[in-house]
Amino acid sequence: MRRDVEVHLEWFLEGKAREAAESGMPAEIAGVLRDFGFAGGKRIRPVLCVAGWQAAGGGGPYGAVMEVAASLGMFHAFCLVHDDVIDDSAARRGQPTVHRALAARCASGRSPAAARRQGVCAAVLVGDLALAWSDELLHSAGLTPRQFTDALPVIDIMRTEVLHGQYLDVTATGQPSGDVERALAIGRCKTAKYTVERPLHIGAALAGDDDTDGRLRTALSEFAIPLGEAFQFRDDLLRVFGDPATTGKSALDDLRDGKPTVLAALALQRATPAQAEQLRLLLGCPTLTDEQADAARRVITATGARDAVEHMITRRYEQAVGALDRAPVDAAAAVALRRLADLAVRRST
Amino acid sequence: MRRDVEVHLEWFLEGKAREAAESGMPAEIAGVLRDFGFAGGKRIRPVLCVAGWQAAGGGGPYGAVMEVAASLGMFHAFCLVHDDVIDDSAARRGQPTVHRALAARCASGRSPAAARRQGVCAAVLVGDLALAWSDELLHSAGLTPRQFTDALPVIDIMRTEVLHGQYLDVTATGQPSGDVERALAIGRCKTAKYTVERPLHIGAALAGDDDTDGRLRTALSEFAIPLGEAFQFRDDLLRVFGDPATTGKSALDDLRDGKPTVLAALALQRATPAQAEQLRLLLGCPTLTDEQADAARRVITATGARDAVEHMITRRYEQAVGALDRAPVDAAAAVALRRLADLAVRRST
Repeated sequence: MRRDVEVHLEWFLEGKAREAAESGMPAEIAGVLRDFGFAGGKRIRPVLCVAGWQAAGGGGPYGAVMEVAASLGMFHAFCLVHDDVIDDSAARRGQPTVHRALAARCASGRSPAAARRQGVCAAVLVGDLALAWSDELLHSAGLTPRQFTDALPVIDIMRTEVLHGQYLDVTATGQPSGDVERALAIGRCKTAKYTVERPLHIGAALAGDDDTDGRLRTALSEFAIPLGEAFQFRDDLLRVFGDPATTGKSALDDLRDGKPTVLAALALQRATPAQAEQLRLLLGCPTLTDEQADAARRVITATGARDAVEHMITRRYEQAVGALDRAPVDAAAAVALRRLADLAVRRST
Repeated sequence: MRRDVEVHLEWFLEGKAREAAESGMPAEIAGVLRDFGFAGGKRIRPVLCVAGWQAAGGGGPYGAVMEVAASLGMFHAFCLVHDDVIDDSAARRGQPTVHRALAARCASGRSPAAARRQGVCAAVLVGDLALAWSDELLHSAGLTPRQFTDALPVIDIMRTEVLHGQYLDVTATGQPSGDVERALAIGRCKTAKYTVERPLHIGAALAGDDDTDGRLRTALSEFAIPLGEAFQFRDDLLRVFGDPATTGKSALDDLRDGKPTVLAALALQRATPAQAEQLRLLLGCPTLTDEQADAARRVITATGARDAVEHMITRRYEQAVGALDRAPVDAAAAVALRRLADLAVRRST
């Protein structure tokens, strides 16, 4: 399935590059998205979309579900491109991010500052195209009118949720606080719902299930939300304590930006006055050095926040797996979801 | 009609603000879009969409067409928000742009540079939401399956075209050249097709016209492309020679950024060696002062480029009106299109 989605996206982007070349438009955009968005990703949302379809007893032609899954993959490429612009991240999956790659491309004849700015502007537009193209993939997926009516509203809700979550994240960034509830709310929107719950719901909606009492959808949410939170917490830990050689991302960005994570909020909540003072100086410091980042990591660990987050991951994983055991889903789908749950929390990238 | 579109968009955004408030999400985004995107705009694309529907003999329920027109209005809000980020424009329609307004909103407790950066990041997300919401408006417009099949591909093409045009614009910005053809190609994509041709085509597609030989669509294009180019040329002149008190925009941005307009390309093409040297120093100079901008305006005028662009506007307006006289469209629609043509080229804002 994962491979089918990749092949479909590659075929779609090749078509876009060809059309652009034929009409004097920039053919390189499709290539930028292919190199960046679809190289080495975990493809977790497309896989969950298909799993949701199977969980709801999905039958009939598989093609439309795969195409919607591909649309979710394209939407995620949009999210990543804009996310990297917003965080000014230099690398993802060990490759330069889109705005950095585009800045390098237009460096000749421009000052470094002008090239950087141009890279950011072009990347905003590349992300916009990925969002527009995720729609085009949806519109051309050959959905039945019933599938349109059932699945599109869920996709629209998902988009609003993840963008709201990102907005809250941006506006809280740089002002570290011990507000664990706020950090949880942001993570729920921008990750738990977006990455796990909604792809499952979209897949289930495509199966045309007769879930009029919402029983299946609720059961999927009871699995998805704790698992998605665990996924986010694992991400937070990897972005601070992970090995950049393995994660392919900087381990400095979250600390330097002062991201409103549960990890940071717990550290501030549990800190002694001296530790809190140190954290407030370090988290969100735009000139944070490697040594200062190490100091921040030591303080976070010393407060017990790192262990607490590990404990939260374990507890939520158990909740998710327990909910899955009780869920009225197809046995094969349950096996696939269990495997995904393991992957989401026990990963090093 | 214009008022119907506005009322519908206001109703939609109120719903978004209410839903956000109820779920602890940022309710202010809908307000930002309402204040910015829908205050004092010309609403030219929604009006043309309805005109295209009428031109194709559109009958049946008006509601769906109006809702698609509203979706085009929301899409345009997305374009403007990201456009202003890309150009770092301070004002539009005499109001602060979204990224500037959001920077002011989060200034407390942050350095000016951090607030500016945060304003940009939040504005990128507000634009993204407007794009996602333009889809939601489309999905909930109550289109028939036939309308979906006929109109959605045109909307998808329009989005790709305008974003391609913007991308070409961004990558050519800051490197002034006498390449008039390139400037024309950019303007055709980002304005002539986006602002005039595609809205007409979308409206015609919604009318379910039996335009199997493409005769109506071709006739609409023969009107739309010259008119859209004239619209872009008028914009280029207003952005350099217009009165900011009337246009509501800076008259410095295009010169300072070195925008690849036909005006700039013609000036460079017609310049004496001394004039060309002066223009190359001034166009795209990031620290351009008001005095230097005046000098650039004087050189552009002296090359004859300003008059040449005025002449191109007149010629294209005549082409458009001539094409309209020959077009197989409903008489009432022809009157409306003629009025729009006048508005598009003889405006001061």
